[in-house]
Amino acid sequence: MKISLIQMEVVTFPTDNLVKIKTLLSQAKESGTDVVVLPEMCCCSYENEAFTRYAMSENDLFIVQLAELAKEFNLFLVAGSIPEKVQERIYNTSFVFDPQGRMIARHRKVHLFDVSIENGQYFKESDTFCAGDSATVFDTKWGKIGLMICYDIRFPEFFRLMGENVKLVIIPASFNMTTGPQHWELLFRARALDNQVYMAGCASAANLQSSYRSWGHSIITDPWGDVLGQLDEKEGILTRKLDLQYVDKIRKELPLLCHRRKNLYKFD
Amino acid sequence: MKISLIQMEVVTFPTDNLVKIKTLLSQAKESGTDVVVLPEMCCCSYENEAFTRYAMSENDLFIVQLAELAKEFNLFLVAGSIPEKVQERIYNTSFVFDPQGRMIARHRKVHLFDVSIENGQYFKESDTFCAGDSATVFDTKWGKIGLMICYDIRFPEFFRLMGENVKLVIIPASFNMTTGPQHWELLFRARALDNQVYMAGCASAANLQSSYRSWGHSIITDPWGDVLGQLDEKEGILTRKLDLQYVDKIRKELPLLCHRRKNLYKFD
Repeated sequence: MKISLIQMEVVTFPTDNLVKIKTLLSQAKESGTDVVVLPEMCCCSYENEAFTRYAMSENDLFIVQLAELAKEFNLFLVAGSIPEKVQERIYNTSFVFDPQGRMIARHRKVHLFDVSIENGQYFKESDTFCAGDSATVFDTKWGKIGLMICYDIRFPEFFRLMGENVKLVIIPASFNMTTGPQHWELLFRARALDNQVYMAGCASAANLQSSYRSWGHSIITDPWGDVLGQLDEKEGILTRKLDLQYVDKIRKELPLLCHRRKNLYKFD
Repeated sequence: MKISLIQMEVVTFPTDNLVKIKTLLSQAKESGTDVVVLPEMCCCSYENEAFTRYAMSENDLFIVQLAELAKEFNLFLVAGSIPEKVQERIYNTSFVFDPQGRMIARHRKVHLFDVSIENGQYFKESDTFCAGDSATVFDTKWGKIGLMICYDIRFPEFFRLMGENVKLVIIPASFNMTTGPQHWELLFRARALDNQVYMAGCASAANLQSSYRSWGHSIITDPWGDVLGQLDEKEGILTRKLDLQYVDKIRKELPLLCHRRKNLYKFD
């Protein structure tokens, strides 16, 4: 199975981003890819004000056209995330479309990013968003794929909810210039190792005009904790072939998942 | 609070190791240290046959003398681990002594290391050991300290059982030449970051005569995921001062522990 992460520089207007997505999808398709991932908030700037302004329902034209693109290019499209409007609520939501253009999954970000670091990043996502309340897994011909968004990666318990059949976890994301250099690669390596899965993190490219500057560095890690590939901060596409049988090999040699003492892990 | 990790080369005979421990404790004490940690299996070779031969009860002279050393040097001693005999059972056990020489905690390794890696490490700890069944936390004047042994570090759920009052987790360990270079630093950085704690991992030095060759690299990581200090594979002592208020600062700026959605984390 071949996966491509489209690290696009997201601009202000949704339509401009959609045009860019189509161009980059076309480029990714040339590599014979099967699954394409877009970054978190691929339709507008990463700013609470933009999230409110451009919030859309699942029937919005932007989303209908994403589905059409999945069909046109005949691939699975993990459509980054968009601000999804449901009555008066807004969620940070990732839609997944299959090669027939059918919506087969929807993940609403479960852990909202509220942070205030001395001399570093400040952002309060919960000013705008409501949180989802479940883990998301979808079926493909290669097996089950897990899906979460950005800050969800910080919570090891959350990965366990996906179950052991998942061999790849996809994460549209947008780490910043404080947490990116320090934690991005570390988290993708550690979660891959602990859960013995492939991990694919797709970030937006750095946009120097935005108040929230993305770290970029879209990444793929393997179940032994190695980095298979990683971009820098510029726009680009990362494509890698994943050997899902390698997951089985690692799980057999170091049976971490079997060694868990589940009966002891009782939480308050 | 000052902590010292004694990365000793463990030799065949328990008495030789005890003599060496006394010498190294004396060296560590010169730095004004408060807490000293010894490596996993600090009394004998890391071999199932040695574990059986030298298994000892908690009243054994080896342990009585460790308690005396804690008292003599007036420090907390996390006495690595030894094969603890309880009737017909053997556990991989870490005892903790306070500066008065009182045994204040005992951790029995909960996750046993059974691994068989192609062209790499083979070891089956469960051939010899029984597993403990609880997390271990002990009180000091600096606050609560968590304690686990080596392979226990692989299980993120296990850390959560210690509770949020723990700001330092100590791990006597002995990674090998396969998993050491790949996973040792990664795991200590990731667990420190996820749990927003200091982590201190004390390994034995490489012993070229042993069938199980230790990776060494005793390490201290901080709650932002940084490495505060790390040795190479040779015998040595790593001493660092820990600023436990830094834990509070990190937890305030990036309130990961508060952001957990505990009600969602239900396991089978």
